Amino acid sequence: MADDEFGIRAGEVAIPLPEKFDAGVYFIGRIQTPWTRREECPKNARESDAVCTIEVAEPYVAALNGVESCTHLLVLYWMDKSRRDLVLQVPRHYGEQRGTFALRSPARPNPIAASVVTLRQISGNRLSVVGLDCLDGTPLVDIKPYFASTDSVPNAVVGWHKAQRC
Amino acid sequence: MADDEFGIRAGEVAIPLPEKFDAGVYFIGRIQTPWTRREECPKNARESDAVCTIEVAEPYVAALNGVESCTHLLVLYWMDKSRRDLVLQVPRHYGEQRGTFALRSPARPNPIAASVVTLRQISGNRLSVVGLDCLDGTPLVDIKPYFASTDSVPNAVVGWHKAQRC
Repeated sequence: MADDEFGIRAGEVAIPLPEKFDAGVYFIGRIQTPWTRREECPKNARESDAVCTIEVAEPYVAALNGVESCTHLLVLYWMDKSRRDLVLQVPRHYGEQRGTFALRSPARPNPIAASVVTLRQISGNRLSVVGLDCLDGTPLVDIKPYFASTDSVPNAVVGWHKAQRC
Repeated sequence: MADDEFGIRAGEVAIPLPEKFDAGVYFIGRIQTPWTRREECPKNARESDAVCTIEVAEPYVAALNGVESCTHLLVLYWMDKSRRDLVLQVPRHYGEQRGTFALRSPARPNPIAASVVTLRQISGNRLSVVGLDCLDGTPLVDIKPYFASTDSVPNAVVGWHKAQRC
């Protein structure tokens, strides 16, 4: 894992990971995006209006019943190219050391990304969505309806990020 | 799994799950809540202003650096009491059959819940938060900063839910 593309940078701290997993994940589909190399991916999903395709694997297609009535979805996917042992990171575009849980970096103990997407269309097992920033072929872990009542907090602040932008 | 409390209801459909997992999850802490039985849990997190405690396991504490500057967090946790094979469900409080991916039910192929919480305080490895609805002792999977710019969509609609309330 410690190759050039996904390696460790000065100021980053890795820990030894447990020898065993505590639970198992099924990949329930794949995500098709225009990006095949990490440096091509948008820095975050709002930077791109590319339409991506979520392809749900056959056994789970019935579980899409009702999803067509949602304007937005919360999509969980598995960042399978990321290292999992970093507790402190120095993201290239910020250049400062921060804890993994203060970042949305794909490198985390459980490399599960959560993205809010706009649903454009469903056709069979394929969902056209806008709002993803992951590599083509990324494994799908979950699809959830996005409820504004519980999921939307317009006035939320990430202090370190706000300070950096001032 | 098919006991009374977590069993299958009329109108629900289960599928055979794959024989093997595709990836593994580490439990990185535990969540302390006031609820020890499923029927005690709030139906959703906005129904309760109970302060819950997220206890991050020792090896990962450094990863909290910077989290204190966030007003809100996205918390992922593992609903370890839930069955994973339901593709169609009939939630008790709605009484209609819907696909698992149109519901926030804990029963799903990968029983990972995603909740937006308000951060009240951090003390060492313990985070006091408001906005959880899970059982006491639920395993923690991830903590992420909540960015209003990408995570907040105030006008999002879950059509089936809106129709049911009218």
